[in-house]
Amino acid sequence: MFYHVKELQFEAKPDRPDALMAKKLQELIGGQYGEMSVAMQYLFQGWSVRGNDKYKDLLLDIGTEEIGHIEMLATMVARLLDDCPIEEQEAAVKDPAIGAIMSGMNPQHAIVSGLGARPSDSVGNPWMGSYIISSGNLLADFRANLNAESQGRLQAVRLFEMTDDRGVKDLLSVLIARDAYHQNQWAAAIAELEEKEGLLVPSTFPREKERMDIAYDFYNFSEGEASKTGRWASGPSLDGEGKYRYIKQPMPEAGIPVLKPAPLKTHNTLPSVSLGEE
Amino acid sequence: MFYHVKELQFEAKPDRPDALMAKKLQELIGGQYGEMSVAMQYLFQGWSVRGNDKYKDLLLDIGTEEIGHIEMLATMVARLLDDCPIEEQEAAVKDPAIGAIMSGMNPQHAIVSGLGARPSDSVGNPWMGSYIISSGNLLADFRANLNAESQGRLQAVRLFEMTDDRGVKDLLSVLIARDAYHQNQWAAAIAELEEKEGLLVPSTFPREKERMDIAYDFYNFSEGEASKTGRWASGPSLDGEGKYRYIKQPMPEAGIPVLKPAPLKTHNTLPSVSLGEE
Amino acid sequence: MFYHVKELQFEAKPDRPDALMAKKLQELIGGQYGEMSVAMQYLFQGWSVRGNDKYKDLLLDIGTEEIGHIEMLATMVARLLDDCPIEEQEAAVKDPAIGAIMSGMNPQHAIVSGLGARPSDSVGNPWMGSYIISSGNLLADFRANLNAESQGRLQAVRLFEMTDDRGVKDLLSVLIARDAYHQNQWAAAIAELEEKEGLLVPSTFPREKERMDIAYDFYNFSEGEASKTGRWASGPSLDGEGKYRYIKQPMPEAGIPVLKPAPLKTHNTLPSVSLGEE
Amino acid sequence: MFYHVKELQFEAKPDRPDALMAKKLQELIGGQYGEMSVAMQYLFQGWSVRGNDKYKDLLLDIGTEEIGHIEMLATMVARLLDDCPIEEQEAAVKDPAIGAIMSGMNPQHAIVSGLGARPSDSVGNPWMGSYIISSGNLLADFRANLNAESQGRLQAVRLFEMTDDRGVKDLLSVLIARDAYHQNQWAAAIAELEEKEGLLVPSTFPREKERMDIAYDFYNFSEGEASKTGRWASGPSLDGEGKYRYIKQPMPEAGIPVLKPAPLKTHNTLPSVSLGEE
Amino acid sequence: MFYHVKELQFEAKPDRPDALMAKKLQELIGGQYGEMSVAMQYLFQGWSVRGNDKYKDLLLDIGTEEIGHIEMLATMVARLLDDCPIEEQEAAVKDPAIGAIMSGMNPQHAIVSGLGARPSDSVGNPWMGSYIISSGNLLADFRANLNAESQGRLQAVRLFEMTDDRGVKDLLSVLIARDAYHQNQWAAAIAELEEKEGLLVPSTFPREKERMDIAYDFYNFSEGEASKTGRWASGPSLDGEGKYRYIKQPMPEAGIPVLKPAPLKTHNTLPSVSLGEE
Amino acid sequence: MFYHVKELQFEAKPDRPDALMAKKLQELIGGQYGEMSVAMQYLFQGWSVRGNDKYKDLLLDIGTEEIGHIEMLATMVARLLDDCPIEEQEAAVKDPAIGAIMSGMNPQHAIVSGLGARPSDSVGNPWMGSYIISSGNLLADFRANLNAESQGRLQAVRLFEMTDDRGVKDLLSVLIARDAYHQNQWAAAIAELEEKEGLLVPSTFPREKERMDIAYDFYNFSEGEASKTGRWASGPSLDGEGKYRYIKQPMPEAGIPVLKPAPLKTHNTLPSVSLGEE
Repeated sequence: MFYHVKELQFEAKPDRPDALMAKKLQELIGGQYGEMSVAMQYLFQGWSVRGNDKYKDLLLDIGTEEIGHIEMLATMVARLLDDCPIEEQEAAVKDPAIGAIMSGMNPQHAIVSGLGARPSDSVGNPWMGSYIISSGNLLADFRANLNAESQGRLQAVRLFEMTDDRGVKDLLSVLIARDAYHQNQWAAAIAELEEKEGLLVPSTFPREKERMDIAYDFYNFSEGEASKTGRWASGPSLDGEGKYRYIKQPMPEAGIPVLKPAPLKTHNTLPSVSLGEE
Repeated sequence: MFYHVKELQFEAKPDRPDALMAKKLQELIGGQYGEMSVAMQYLFQGWSVRGNDKYKDLLLDIGTEEIGHIEMLATMVARLLDDCPIEEQEAAVKDPAIGAIMSGMNPQHAIVSGLGARPSDSVGNPWMGSYIISSGNLLADFRANLNAESQGRLQAVRLFEMTDDRGVKDLLSVLIARDAYHQNQWAAAIAELEEKEGLLVPSTFPREKERMDIAYDFYNFSEGEASKTGRWASGPSLDGEGKYRYIKQPMPEAGIPVLKPAPLKTHNTLPSVSLGEE
Repeated sequence: MFYHVKELQFEAKPDRPDALMAKKLQELIGGQYGEMSVAMQYLFQGWSVRGNDKYKDLLLDIGTEEIGHIEMLATMVARLLDDCPIEEQEAAVKDPAIGAIMSGMNPQHAIVSGLGARPSDSVGNPWMGSYIISSGNLLADFRANLNAESQGRLQAVRLFEMTDDRGVKDLLSVLIARDAYHQNQWAAAIAELEEKEGLLVPSTFPREKERMDIAYDFYNFSEGEASKTGRWASGPSLDGEGKYRYIKQPMPEAGIPVLKPAPLKTHNTLPSVSLGEE
Repeated sequence: MFYHVKELQFEAKPDRPDALMAKKLQELIGGQYGEMSVAMQYLFQGWSVRGNDKYKDLLLDIGTEEIGHIEMLATMVARLLDDCPIEEQEAAVKDPAIGAIMSGMNPQHAIVSGLGARPSDSVGNPWMGSYIISSGNLLADFRANLNAESQGRLQAVRLFEMTDDRGVKDLLSVLIARDAYHQNQWAAAIAELEEKEGLLVPSTFPREKERMDIAYDFYNFSEGEASKTGRWASGPSLDGEGKYRYIKQPMPEAGIPVLKPAPLKTHNTLPSVSLGEE
Repeated sequence: MFYHVKELQFEAKPDRPDALMAKKLQELIGGQYGEMSVAMQYLFQGWSVRGNDKYKDLLLDIGTEEIGHIEMLATMVARLLDDCPIEEQEAAVKDPAIGAIMSGMNPQHAIVSGLGARPSDSVGNPWMGSYIISSGNLLADFRANLNAESQGRLQAVRLFEMTDDRGVKDLLSVLIARDAYHQNQWAAAIAELEEKEGLLVPSTFPREKERMDIAYDFYNFSEGEASKTGRWASGPSLDGEGKYRYIKQPMPEAGIPVLKPAPLKTHNTLPSVSLGEE
Repeated sequence: MFYHVKELQFEAKPDRPDALMAKKLQELIGGQYGEMSVAMQYLFQGWSVRGNDKYKDLLLDIGTEEIGHIEMLATMVARLLDDCPIEEQEAAVKDPAIGAIMSGMNPQHAIVSGLGARPSDSVGNPWMGSYIISSGNLLADFRANLNAESQGRLQAVRLFEMTDDRGVKDLLSVLIARDAYHQNQWAAAIAELEEKEGLLVPSTFPREKERMDIAYDFYNFSEGEASKTGRWASGPSLDGEGKYRYIKQPMPEAGIPVLKPAPLKTHNTLPSVSLGEE
């Protein structure tokens, strides 16, 4: 169950309206790695935890924090859209600065949302449930989370570099710091789990059931051997159970697959069609 | 530039047709973490690498391998669909085993693809470009890759447990081994990069520009303190630059946001509407 | 800013596992009118309110309540998935009841989410940001909200009729009651706004700018005049500003549109192609 | 069965080409509340009506009208795209007005559709079947329709304010008038149904089966009591069956949910992982 | 402008309810090549025709016909859903035939649409605007149309084979005949255009601007030369302007691409990271 | 199984950076008819071929070629994005040429992909599996392929006309030539198949099972008879089996459909609601 207070956790006030920045900030709200993604991802993961209270609490703590991040960004976007020039007038379009805003802003910010934030990314794609993962395997999911915070901080940093608006930079400096913490945090949780379970997800699958003879081979499928010098190509494997092997020229183990003709009722092309030709 | 040989890298022959398993295996072809995702993700990442030949080669090696994985799975799905009972007949539907197949199989396998694989997941959602990421920051992207291989192996393992078809299990045992290797490999590449760049992505952003005073705080937003016992809540941070701090009762730093009325031309609800009431 | 407590607002415990019901309940989580939709819709509307505190508070009250509804349903789905038969075995498939579950359940519940809820609907479509609306015009949006609660209650009621599991029925009886209240509530908010603004959205557009001569006409575009007997076809209009008029045979006012040929550089079909023919 | 005449119902001729307006008008064609949505929504509702001829006729009348609206808008968009400057030349880009058009127009209008309309919205998202609803419950659906016409008129009005092209304004003044009528019409149909069925959808569910003790409670989940002053918070309910009650501090009724561990074969994280820690 | 008559062009009455067939028939309504696709594709193409009245008329004739096909199929689906068993009861699930229906039907047919058709395909994906094309080049588009009718007829034929319901077969025999006619028709229109314009789309691009030296080469990128025996590999080309050439071993013409480092402000991985290693 | 060489098949070097062209070229990478579509379409078709080796080889040859096309375009896009002005500064925005780039470029090229290509089209929609078809019927699919190459060449030609960058034109002149060849090739393959199978897809359905009495009728559903003069309206049909017939005034063959009331448990609107009115 959730409670809300109206105060923002951190301030979200730009120095001046800027409809182009409003459009770009949408990436942090409804993009693949925006705040809607991390909020929903952590909550769904948390709600699905089975018998690991510490991690359940962790996920619900951070998932709840992230809803507040959507709120701050939505507030910022609404303010960046204040007074945006929506009227096409000959004079307006001829002023380069106004023209750039009018042609570059997200038209749905004016037509659909009435100067409010949208549940979409910076080009206007709606947020999708398929951006997130909750698998029930916490080591797998914490890796997803570490990636999300890495991509998220990278995007926030890029946006920070794109603007000289002090207020926007202030909010981004908060998000950048939180994404740094969250990288620190998921890395710590991963370290805890890897210590117990080892490197491989899932750890509970008996390895003798997999093809262990190919489980440490690097296949050189792209001509050139620059990749040979990496730690993944020789020496003991990170999981401590094998030795990396570099396969310079990977060869097929199986033959050419031949499929049975389809039954007549599917009305696929009949095999005789080309058999006659060859 | 790519070349193709018709031999499969590994065998893909089920013991017997099984339209339900064909539907489920689609998750590994066109699901969020299926082979289309890893193939496309690694290739796009590889094509975008700027000046790091070793990693470019690595990405193109593995991306190329993964196209061959789609091929093996597509072959397997086609064979699992051989002779599948598509005809609704009173007798058929009453036989529980046939009824289960007819009602449970993916109808598009019969109607649309004529017993071939689909570029979709196990419920029929089409594969989407938004499943993948290529950011230009390799540490971020290798974390995405480690996650993808973790989720991918987890799913392959679950499918392995669901069937007793020896041929399906054989192919899965290959994919499980390769996903194990790829976890080993991305973990090694990550270790290389973290050694140079440190834990945080991106490493090149000057930390004094972010809100360092909140960059190590854990916010306890979900009542209950089970999460306090984790490594993320106290002690030195994994990035070596700070000390974790547990904030038992996080409080807002900013006030209640008040937005300016929208200009008349947007025809939003006027502020007077409720001001009159209060 | 949001806080979370781990207690559920209402109980979410089924009498027994039921993977088919788990699949169906997903409609209430991630469907077009599921709880993700109302939670996000009300929050985005609330964050965008400009100067109408009463309505802003209302929206944030209910939006916050709805996140807790996702939580209850996610918990219910996880429990319905306990012990679900995921293994295909000859014996299993031949038992009609087990076969029905195995072929009918959402395969992603086993393969992807590890027996947890998904951010998707009952056929597996991911939730999308394009399900929701926040326009800045509260009368328009409250109508969207009344519709959402009407569709939502209808779906919950249908699901109530589909099961005899007491625990599922208990949770649904809560959601049905809340959706009833929320219909009551949005209807009340609409009544408040219509009293001030009138029926038409937006109320602030000067009506002389629209084609008032056709603003009360019913066009009978589908042969047959059953629709003529409705209140929309004669008598004073509900907005109090006109009189409904039934146009039995609507006729075009304009001519046949003729488009200019495209410039050569678009390489559209040249007009001469068919002009020569006619 | 449908017939078509080539005359447009109303004129659709802009004063001058304007590729930016063409892009924006797409919202009214293929947006969430564009004409494709209302046409398809009313037709699907109409085709599904079971035994209520008056409403079936109504829906098919208006659904058929709306196809003609797509036609007028598609014609308008094609004309706005006449002669649009698609060639990037140094000189062109330096002219602010031309540069604004070239950088702001929808590139698919030139590359994909050859200066024709697209089945997409103003940012380029394709129209989706998930924009519409047809539930079989007419009161629910008419509320959806009233919302659609409210959002639609709001968007048309905003677009009207954005342009000074007389021809575009003329077409919009038609659409605004029709959307006004359609609000009047759905409101009338709703009034008819509510008179018979009451406020709540669906009316046929026996209310004793829902949790009546919470069916009139307002939960104050967002701190601050501005929402308390609304008609939804006290007094008799609009459905005439209860009394609104304001719950200042909503408390959980249930306990903290504990989920059973997942079966080993799902390879979820084992419960022991963190139990050991706590 | 469109008119509607309530009579169906052809009868749409199944012999008996069949919720599984209702789900499958959805492919013909809202699938990639369903009637929504052809209706919308032909109408958008028709509305965009510039100066070729014969083809414009043709497109609008057939586009209008196809809306009536959606109508017939929607009616059929509604009837197939009559009396479908939606209640999960122990007894029901144990009856194989009922269990098959309950687990195999589209749950949204019961929960969302109240036994009406959905704007979706046979697995439940919503119809999308991105299924269709209207390019302004009629030869290109008529090829799209010929493909659509080929895929459409193939799917209708497969569905015909899947059922022994006389009424369903009757409707399908109509659709199969119409799709046959429409293949005949688009083929005729293509023949007309190819006679004037030649084989290649677009015909208006001066061929000396393309790389004519590679415009007739077949590249043998997949080992094995079975493809060498086709008409595409030797002899005069179908466009009458060249001679096919079989390139047994295609070789790259360009070198290995090297990308410039990204500017610092993008925070991509710096080139030095791996340069140091190699 | 696939192999990769790092050399590009053809050169992909622009004369100068151009972020607007980078955005537009995305249509050829991840658009409906971009290289991702043809690569995946041909490979899925090839992997599904059952017993027609010549066509299987053909599909896999060309599918493999197309992956290399994605590679060249991705390289080109990365280079066009070199040095793109991402910083909003007052001065910058006022320079029309820079302003045009900043407001018109795809913001995800800077924020998300770090100056690399995206798996998306020119407005930013992610590529989707639903763009492609693989039906098992080769004549149907080769028609899809001929359409794809026609649309693809048309788009490449339009882009060629939009730029004066020599390097971009060079790459496009390659793609245009290859798309010309591929039209030539699929046309040849179609001719081979039509010679054996006839015009209609599928050829294996016994025609007496369809409604032959309506299989050659043209229905004039759009008033005006311009379409009457086409080859599709009179004379012998292209399939050689019938005679086209022009039906000036198509009439319904069936009556008005009446649907049974829904069962009470669906809570649809009851029929009595309006019966009482009429």
